[in-house]
Amino acid sequence: MASLDEMRMLMRELPGPDLEARTACIAREGTLTKPAGALGRLESLTEWLATWQGRHPPTLNHPRTAVFAGNHGVAARGVSAYPASVTAQMVENFVSGGAAVNQLCQAVDADLRVYELDLDNPTRDFTEAPAMSHQDCARAMAYGMMAVERGLDVLCLGEMGIGNTTSAAALCCALFGGDAADWVGPGTGVAGAALERKRAAVVAGVARHKPTARDPFELLAAVGGLELAAIAGGVIAARLARTPVLLDGFACTAAAAVLFAIDRRALDHCQVAHRSTEPGHQRLLEVLDKRPLLDLDMRLGEASAATLAVALLKAAIACHTGMATFAEAGISGPTH
Amino acid sequence: MASLDEMRMLMRELPGPDLEARTACIAREGTLTKPAGALGRLESLTEWLATWQGRHPPTLNHPRTAVFAGNHGVAARGVSAYPASVTAQMVENFVSGGAAVNQLCQAVDADLRVYELDLDNPTRDFTEAPAMSHQDCARAMAYGMMAVERGLDVLCLGEMGIGNTTSAAALCCALFGGDAADWVGPGTGVAGAALERKRAAVVAGVARHKPTARDPFELLAAVGGLELAAIAGGVIAARLARTPVLLDGFACTAAAAVLFAIDRRALDHCQVAHRSTEPGHQRLLEVLDKRPLLDLDMRLGEASAATLAVALLKAAIACHTGMATFAEAGISGPTH
Repeated sequence: MASLDEMRMLMRELPGPDLEARTACIAREGTLTKPAGALGRLESLTEWLATWQGRHPPTLNHPRTAVFAGNHGVAARGVSAYPASVTAQMVENFVSGGAAVNQLCQAVDADLRVYELDLDNPTRDFTEAPAMSHQDCARAMAYGMMAVERGLDVLCLGEMGIGNTTSAAALCCALFGGDAADWVGPGTGVAGAALERKRAAVVAGVARHKPTARDPFELLAAVGGLELAAIAGGVIAARLARTPVLLDGFACTAAAAVLFAIDRRALDHCQVAHRSTEPGHQRLLEVLDKRPLLDLDMRLGEASAATLAVALLKAAIACHTGMATFAEAGISGPTH
Repeated sequence: MASLDEMRMLMRELPGPDLEARTACIAREGTLTKPAGALGRLESLTEWLATWQGRHPPTLNHPRTAVFAGNHGVAARGVSAYPASVTAQMVENFVSGGAAVNQLCQAVDADLRVYELDLDNPTRDFTEAPAMSHQDCARAMAYGMMAVERGLDVLCLGEMGIGNTTSAAALCCALFGGDAADWVGPGTGVAGAALERKRAAVVAGVARHKPTARDPFELLAAVGGLELAAIAGGVIAARLARTPVLLDGFACTAAAAVLFAIDRRALDHCQVAHRSTEPGHQRLLEVLDKRPLLDLDMRLGEASAATLAVALLKAAIACHTGMATFAEAGISGPTH
């Protein structure tokens, strides 16, 4: 049976970068037929993939998209534009192939897995009680770890859960400080009174739980959600398995940020795929010192942006592995 | 025989947006299983494709990448990090499949065409004489128009030409004002004395030709290049054929900007694929009021970023055409 203590132990065993693979990658990159650095972030993405896959050349034949779905007690406070029943309805939509993420997985040839976390039993309303017990949180993390198998080249993580940007805002506020209003945004599209309810819920949740939580995992249990805990578990498992990770939007990045709050190097194997229009995401990116790969005004979640960014990784590797060297092509180098 | 007067006539016949296709696109988008607007620019890209292809749903089965290569007399002034011979060597590299753009075309399944513009006869050094005669300029534009055929879903434009960021900077400076230094940047990687030579060449070219040029086409002939003229022709032909265009980096966007200087609506069927690190590009994007699709620190040219951005267009259309509607999926709408 999983426990938070076991998760704490895993956090002390996270493997570091493969410097040999990185060096081999940099060496080849410098020989390719282009001015040095002219492919910009495509070059650094290739280097990052090599470093965290632990091999050169890196590969991208088996991307996986994992979407975790959970329900939130706090949704009953009217913090979302949609009823909580939409979580399960969207899971059905994922299964029947009708959601955005299905089309995006097809576009980049990613294997889509959808993980439901006990949708009939939402977490408790965190303004009144801890959202989950420590054990339920650890169990959800362990469940999330199952999304990682041998042979994956990259893991795209995402979520579905009505109410979860409220939970993510509370988590960020508790982990990184600031006012609730800094972290609360429209989510699926709330404004006015609903937005104020959302802010008030975050204030209440942080005030109730921050004083008693002994570490970021306990905060995750107190104000997080099952799908957020699962994402945190997925990020850990991916690190252990040398699988680079693409993080999606605000809720997903907030879940991963729990690990950053424990160890600043814990997300070195992760890229943030996209800058969400959710304002808390921008603030969180600054905390994590992550520059997103895309900036397309998306705010959908469900791993949509993470999956879309796989196209960039594929392109990066295609250039790195397929291009001719100056020597092969007989091209003159710089004159000065 | 093509003439600049014929090109001026074509500029008065540019078709406008297809508002019926746009309306049909917006109507479907609003029914899809996501919060309104949650796919951000993927939604606006689909709308743009429908509007300028003139059909709903838009399609993206036949993307084409056209790379135009030309040589520049001004290169002899030592304005580039590479010798002029690299233009032809890189064309060979395109033909033999070893360049970045080859790998990127393969990644997005685009048809690559490479057009050489008389590489053995560079344009004249524009600090001493007009780069081209009006007739040579018109002929290069007409040649560029050949890149457009029926049945293309999008045209990605790009260039190869040692010295052409010097030419692009002179063109922008002459068309849109400002100091030469505002438009001159490292290009393939010049600094110090070479960068100063580049700036001085732009100052000299603009001073010599701006007073006598009667319109933007004459400026294109005076300080542009054969490949830049061809790109301008390609943009016109694409508009006439209802083929949306992806523009690449600084030199490519500068070539297209000649048309903008004649008619502010002339680039409405174009998206700029990527924000180049070349500083003049940022300034040019502000003039054109275009927000690029990608921002990946690339500065390679050769249509590399334009081709990469095809992946975003494909994803946008996949979502628009493949997603279920709220009604089909039986999903609840917003509660308030």
